Amino acid sequence: MTQAPFKTAIVRKEHFNAAHRLHNPQWDDTQNAKVFGKCNNPNYHGHNYDLEVKVIGFCDPQTGYVMDAKVLSDLIKKEVLYPFDHKNLNIEVPEFQGLNPTAENIARVIYEKLRPSIHPEMDLKIKLYETPRNFVEFPYE
Amino acid sequence: MTQAPFKTAIVRKEHFNAAHRLHNPQWDDTQNAKVFGKCNNPNYHGHNYDLEVKVIGFCDPQTGYVMDAKVLSDLIKKEVLYPFDHKNLNIEVPEFQGLNPTAENIARVIYEKLRPSIHPEMDLKIKLYETPRNFVEFPYE
Amino acid sequence: MTQAPFKTAIVRKEHFNAAHRLHNPQWDDTQNAKVFGKCNNPNYHGHNYDLEVKVIGFCDPQTGYVMDAKVLSDLIKKEVLYPFDHKNLNIEVPEFQGLNPTAENIARVIYEKLRPSIHPEMDLKIKLYETPRNFVEFPYE
Amino acid sequence: MTQAPFKTAIVRKEHFNAAHRLHNPQWDDTQNAKVFGKCNNPNYHGHNYDLEVKVIGFCDPQTGYVMDAKVLSDLIKKEVLYPFDHKNLNIEVPEFQGLNPTAENIARVIYEKLRPSIHPEMDLKIKLYETPRNFVEFPYE
Amino acid sequence: MTQAPFKTAIVRKEHFNAAHRLHNPQWDDTQNAKVFGKCNNPNYHGHNYDLEVKVIGFCDPQTGYVMDAKVLSDLIKKEVLYPFDHKNLNIEVPEFQGLNPTAENIARVIYEKLRPSIHPEMDLKIKLYETPRNFVEFPYE
Amino acid sequence: MTQAPFKTAIVRKEHFNAAHRLHNPQWDDTQNAKVFGKCNNPNYHGHNYDLEVKVIGFCDPQTGYVMDAKVLSDLIKKEVLYPFDHKNLNIEVPEFQGLNPTAENIARVIYEKLRPSIHPEMDLKIKLYETPRNFVEFPYE
Repeated sequence: MTQAPFKTAIVRKEHFNAAHRLHNPQWDDTQNAKVFGKCNNPNYHGHNYDLEVKVIGFCDPQTGYVMDAKVLSDLIKKEVLYPFDHKNLNIEVPEFQGLNPTAENIARVIYEKLRPSIHPEMDLKIKLYETPRNFVEFPYE
Repeated sequence: MTQAPFKTAIVRKEHFNAAHRLHNPQWDDTQNAKVFGKCNNPNYHGHNYDLEVKVIGFCDPQTGYVMDAKVLSDLIKKEVLYPFDHKNLNIEVPEFQGLNPTAENIARVIYEKLRPSIHPEMDLKIKLYETPRNFVEFPYE
Repeated sequence: MTQAPFKTAIVRKEHFNAAHRLHNPQWDDTQNAKVFGKCNNPNYHGHNYDLEVKVIGFCDPQTGYVMDAKVLSDLIKKEVLYPFDHKNLNIEVPEFQGLNPTAENIARVIYEKLRPSIHPEMDLKIKLYETPRNFVEFPYE
Repeated sequence: MTQAPFKTAIVRKEHFNAAHRLHNPQWDDTQNAKVFGKCNNPNYHGHNYDLEVKVIGFCDPQTGYVMDAKVLSDLIKKEVLYPFDHKNLNIEVPEFQGLNPTAENIARVIYEKLRPSIHPEMDLKIKLYETPRNFVEFPYE
Repeated sequence: MTQAPFKTAIVRKEHFNAAHRLHNPQWDDTQNAKVFGKCNNPNYHGHNYDLEVKVIGFCDPQTGYVMDAKVLSDLIKKEVLYPFDHKNLNIEVPEFQGLNPTAENIARVIYEKLRPSIHPEMDLKIKLYETPRNFVEFPYE
Repeated sequence: MTQAPFKTAIVRKEHFNAAHRLHNPQWDDTQNAKVFGKCNNPNYHGHNYDLEVKVIGFCDPQTGYVMDAKVLSDLIKKEVLYPFDHKNLNIEVPEFQGLNPTAENIARVIYEKLRPSIHPEMDLKIKLYETPRNFVEFPYE
């Protein structure tokens, strides 16, 4: 079978548990409470984040792989799970010093951490579940 | 962190339970039975519909949100869950007077009910599960 | 390996879609509306019912089976899926003439329909999901 | 149909998001870190807790209900979701002042909060998912 | 309601169980073991494959369907489930004689088997779960 | 809080992928084909097995644990995942030399491998999904 004329996407799911609060330090407490509601709780709350990382490219005819799923899983563990899992995102994760840890921003940070390690001719997309009923996708073209 | 060059999607899942039958009043009973099979049962049958509403836009740097998920959830409750949940779609929901309540048409009706309340620069997409093994997406570009 | 000193349970999952309404004909409309709320809608609503049938017995050393899962699946299709799927339970299913089709009563009816076809030395248990967040188990000893 | 000779269980699923840390104040930091590992993080981490509340009793022949699922859902909202959701269990929930918020202890606290509001002739069981792969059940007889 | 200006997608989920091993016959055993790891086991291992088949087109105003989901389900059964289910992909499925049965290649083979039976003005997309945490999509444009 | 008068169960979910065939060597091919159908395929087929291991005991007031979930997870990895994952159960796993690898027998073998490592005052129960719609529980008392 010759190389397919179409690209293929592979997806790896991982998960991590973390605490966060939503807060804009440029606003006063009233404004923060109004915009972020109970998510602004100063004592933090938390989530089981489910993460799907999608890599898009042509399938290698030698291996039948777009990318080895184990290599992708190890990369996610190193760049995302090790620094985020069982952590307080606001206090302990440098990328959220000054950046509100909404699902949208967490997905973008994960994208930026993984992008340099993915082959430049391949595309990368992040899907992040904050709860089973709320999730985000980045980038969405 | 400056505004991202890419858009982000946020998704909110909701669900409702309803009765329906599939039927084209311009056809006779034989034709309806042939095309719609057991879904044409004149006494109705029903489903737990799972609904995913996706809104696509740029993330607001002040809030870290594309759109507040609670605002989106409240909008879905008002426009979809309140008028559809525990209802007979054929008899009690005005949009299906003269429109066959297939999953495809229900998704399109939900789109048209929500579209005016979503910011015009944002895109809207609907995913509707009729059963865990059958679902539709509208619009699909 | 000799016969195990303990019993084993096998479970088969199936599903069906049906319409129903909750109603006690011995009560007036006000009482029915008060007790059953939107589930009392006279035009019916519906559900995707997920059904788990559990059979408990000793494992046969010749086959390694408690009971052949295909035989169990075929029995559920004959006794439950064929008469219930895409039906209006109140109107079209004889067992609910005079019996309110709550999840509790549907589970009991399913038990009574299957019990005669299960080996008398084996136990039978029914789990019925009316929605992903509401389910019942019968019998519960 | 006369009263069934067997009991029926009904189950209602709810969920809440909270932060916690595992810590025994009678131990020093070394002992806490050894026993609780990354769950001992002093800055907290968090979970989406999925909760199943099971009530076991005889089905009422008048209603076809063991207990109205909406009444059960409202009770869980009042006793568990309102005081626990988007909270830091260690700091903000009085029952965990001096009690380590492991899944086992959270399940027991939920049982003790709900038990007085359930009919004394009915049994109550709690199932609590801390993650999709770790859960507890209390009481287990 | 006139024809929608947008396309709709319908999706049908099916599943099959099969054995496979990953192996490139042009490589020696050392190279195969290095690239494919435990997936290269010469005695095979297996998976429950979950398959989602998406068909994209305009909704027919007469039926309210893009395509009858039962027709799509029957097509998948004929072209995929019957030849793949409970089979050893390497030994018994002709398409994998000389083609490594990675998830990427299985998805492409399924696409090529179904494509001739789907209306030429409709698009077709395949999503294949090898495990709940690894899946692929083909074609991905 | 004093020791609870009731036991608590903790459950850990894990999964593995394996190939198998169902076959009784004391029977001829006709009898095997008749009893085991397509599961008797001599070239094997396979599954993603989902495993739930439940340990039942009193909660330790010092830790708030019945048993550390990480210790339980490590034990399952050592006794079950390492010897079973990506293996052919009939050929490569000694416990199935002469024992038909039905779900019932696999669950019993897992129980017997784990039982000696669980505290003797605690109970152990195994739940094994062969597919999302077929599972077994052992022991079932």
